[in-house]
Amino acid sequence: MSIALKTALAYHSAWAHQDLDEAMTHIADDIICDAPAGRLEGAPAYRAFMAGFVAILKSTTVLAAFGNDTTALIMYDTSTHPVPSAPGAELVTVLHDRITYSRFLFDRLPFAQARQPTT
Amino acid sequence: MSIALKTALAYHSAWAHQDLDEAMTHIADDIICDAPAGRLEGAPAYRAFMAGFVAILKSTTVLAAFGNDTTALIMYDTSTHPVPSAPGAELVTVLHDRITYSRFLFDRLPFAQARQPTT
Repeated sequence: MSIALKTALAYHSAWAHQDLDEAMTHIADDIICDAPAGRLEGAPAYRAFMAGFVAILKSTTVLAAFGNDTTALIMYDTSTHPVPSAPGAELVTVLHDRITYSRFLFDRLPFAQARQPTT
Repeated sequence: MSIALKTALAYHSAWAHQDLDEAMTHIADDIICDAPAGRLEGAPAYRAFMAGFVAILKSTTVLAAFGNDTTALIMYDTSTHPVPSAPGAELVTVLHDRITYSRFLFDRLPFAQARQPTT
């Protein structure tokens, strides 16, 4: 398995077990993450975002994962408290066993609807 | 390049050029697509969905693409008339050079916001 894919899957496995400390060992201090709501810069901002997500996470399964030496692409499904099926995809760049960049994609609409049932 | 990846990229290239007829040559008659709004079944339903998307498409670029003999995973960005940057990811199963299943992911929220500026 490629180094980037191994790192991406180890990171996924850690947050799948809601272990943020372990998850962050796979994240570079200067990570940049382009998420649906905008750019997150640096490990503290990234951890704060993940903490919010892990708090509502029930379970997750990997649907597919591919990678080469520097890049991995993974798609997974998640079950969360507000949204029963909330799949996500991450395209990550890995350097020295750490994720330095993540392009992160999921559908925010059902989460927005769960917060505001009238919209 | 793997057969599944070749098919997924040929399909992407066709709709990138807004050529729905060419795009549909890569789609199985009995395609099943799990999209954010729900399941699409069969080529006519899938084509109708794609026609709506291609009508608002300005451009698209592949961010990453991987695959093996039967499966491909691709992430791309798109620029559309209502939403300047609307990335998507597709996990496809390919049989006999045609996409038979697609798990399709994008963020619907900015499209909903573009339709209803007050929400």
